[in-house]
Amino acid sequence: MNTASDIDYARYDHIRPILWTGDALQLLDQRKLPFVVEHVVCHDSDEVAAAIHALTVRGAPAIGIAAAWGVVLAARDVQAADGAHALQQLEPALQRLNASRPTAVNLAWALARMRRCLNAAGADWKAALEAEAQAIAEEDLAANRHMGALGAGLIEAGSGVLTHCNTGSLATAGFGTALGVIRAGMAQHRIARVFAGETRPWLQGARLTVWELQQDGIDATLIADSAASHLMKTGAVQWVIVGADRICANGDTANKIGTYQLAIAARHHGVKFMVVAPSSTVDMETVDGSQIEIEQRDPGELYGVGGTRTVAEGIAAWNPVFDVTPGELIDAIVTERGVILNPTADNMRAAFGG
Amino acid sequence: MNTASDIDYARYDHIRPILWTGDALQLLDQRKLPFVVEHVVCHDSDEVAAAIHALTVRGAPAIGIAAAWGVVLAARDVQAADGAHALQQLEPALQRLNASRPTAVNLAWALARMRRCLNAAGADWKAALEAEAQAIAEEDLAANRHMGALGAGLIEAGSGVLTHCNTGSLATAGFGTALGVIRAGMAQHRIARVFAGETRPWLQGARLTVWELQQDGIDATLIADSAASHLMKTGAVQWVIVGADRICANGDTANKIGTYQLAIAARHHGVKFMVVAPSSTVDMETVDGSQIEIEQRDPGELYGVGGTRTVAEGIAAWNPVFDVTPGELIDAIVTERGVILNPTADNMRAAFGG
Repeated sequence: MNTASDIDYARYDHIRPILWTGDALQLLDQRKLPFVVEHVVCHDSDEVAAAIHALTVRGAPAIGIAAAWGVVLAARDVQAADGAHALQQLEPALQRLNASRPTAVNLAWALARMRRCLNAAGADWKAALEAEAQAIAEEDLAANRHMGALGAGLIEAGSGVLTHCNTGSLATAGFGTALGVIRAGMAQHRIARVFAGETRPWLQGARLTVWELQQDGIDATLIADSAASHLMKTGAVQWVIVGADRICANGDTANKIGTYQLAIAARHHGVKFMVVAPSSTVDMETVDGSQIEIEQRDPGELYGVGGTRTVAEGIAAWNPVFDVTPGELIDAIVTERGVILNPTADNMRAAFGG
Repeated sequence: MNTASDIDYARYDHIRPILWTGDALQLLDQRKLPFVVEHVVCHDSDEVAAAIHALTVRGAPAIGIAAAWGVVLAARDVQAADGAHALQQLEPALQRLNASRPTAVNLAWALARMRRCLNAAGADWKAALEAEAQAIAEEDLAANRHMGALGAGLIEAGSGVLTHCNTGSLATAGFGTALGVIRAGMAQHRIARVFAGETRPWLQGARLTVWELQQDGIDATLIADSAASHLMKTGAVQWVIVGADRICANGDTANKIGTYQLAIAARHHGVKFMVVAPSSTVDMETVDGSQIEIEQRDPGELYGVGGTRTVAEGIAAWNPVFDVTPGELIDAIVTERGVILNPTADNMRAAFGG
């Protein structure tokens, strides 16, 4: 079996959703992929908040990184003697960024980190802020590469895997979380088959994941979300591998709607279930999943696809975009700090304190 | 509690997908609903077979009825002294009709019934054939009304229900199977909330079911298929109610892809699971689900919706359109012959012989 050091990371570096140009933030517009590759340029923090809310940029780690750059943009017109004074002026912008999506904890985590940076910074606080945003992005990429190797190490050679939503380069600073494990597992010849659920309503799997893997020459087979159990019954899949938007102190994990259903089905079939996320996704302040606010989005996301309306006028829809998978349905949580098997409040506390 | 006799069936009679005009078969084109209400007119049996294959008409009972009328159309140009001789000439047309979709047993059942009719008919075999097709349609409508009352009788007042695919008037001669139970349950004030899964890839729930219920003034809330488990966790749903394309001798049930996943999730949450189908759907020749041929359709159904392509070129997709729910995950099978609780090979044999 090959090891992590054998992975040619440059091969997986085609896509960077977030580019800092020195005075603006370029976001690859994920609403238009895969057919239109277009960037949205944000010149101030409110444009970043709007882009996060509109899903121009999405994926919990990517949202955190974009928000950090949003703080840098907000700081440009601020005059202050030191970071602590700057923070007072930046507070409204920070709060608007924090409110742009409710479920992913990485957003609040990145903003808290920018706050701490400001509180510690002197006269050079603008340079310190920019360096902190850069560090958040670079650490995310490094974490993903490390998690890829850790997660792949759990997978037996010849396995099939199913993933949900998009957790790749597009959702992070690069390489990806769950998709990073899949990339590493493919590079190490542990993974033989990759399946991706299309992930209604926003179709992150159909539009983004299979396209992103295609850029790397990795074949993935698209399935309807509701075909997952039938697929598991055929024996084609040994692991479900997903990302996370928030991991609670007991291992309960909020992730894209449909994740919970996959976890139930996986347990029913004896298929293993892996959550891959940087430690910034772990929220030891949230005791369990019942305390997580689940974002409800526009019912209109269920009324059609692209320009094609498929549902009659006057129909109600319920559109929660996340759900919570209980820790007891998760076989492994992989962060850059290590692997937690069968997460519980005890082994989570041992790993993450709190 | 009201009883079946309180149901005003005329209220639920807005939609008839299959109309025999005396010399042609008019099919409501289900590919174009809900925005275009258009009929396809079939003048011969091959046009009927093509319409079944293309999903112009769909739903296991509706397919059987359409195929029966297809035999009537095939017979128009045939000259024969009696039914048995006509059958020899009609055999190729019958086989083409039978091959138009593989999974629903109602198709083979209706054609077998037309064969038996022919074998028994004398010189007036054409009139006998037409009467038999008419009887198949009328018996289906009567069965649905009866099943509606039987199934609703299982539901406690104030319950929420979730359905999948379309099992209503559009899928039958009228009133519907699972949707018939929902109609009866609403009329009897047993059902307080109706949820419908959109049913990717063909979106029967999104395009057809919520629209069909809207015609009756029944509010249904649309959900993404992958939101079903999260919905169950909220406690909003007490029953999942679905139709069937084939019910095996042990209760294993083939139905629209995603049904199996709902059954697993329902059991996990203590939600009850009901299958509603006419006895023509029961196939005592098929011992269990492993013997059912699962239709695979064009992967292109996953590449987009309507005219909007959402998936990059060159992506593989796996598109099974049915799955099999094991009998042990089913709490009740409702046919017009009665209710079978917790189906097994034994209680199925007691009800259906074989």
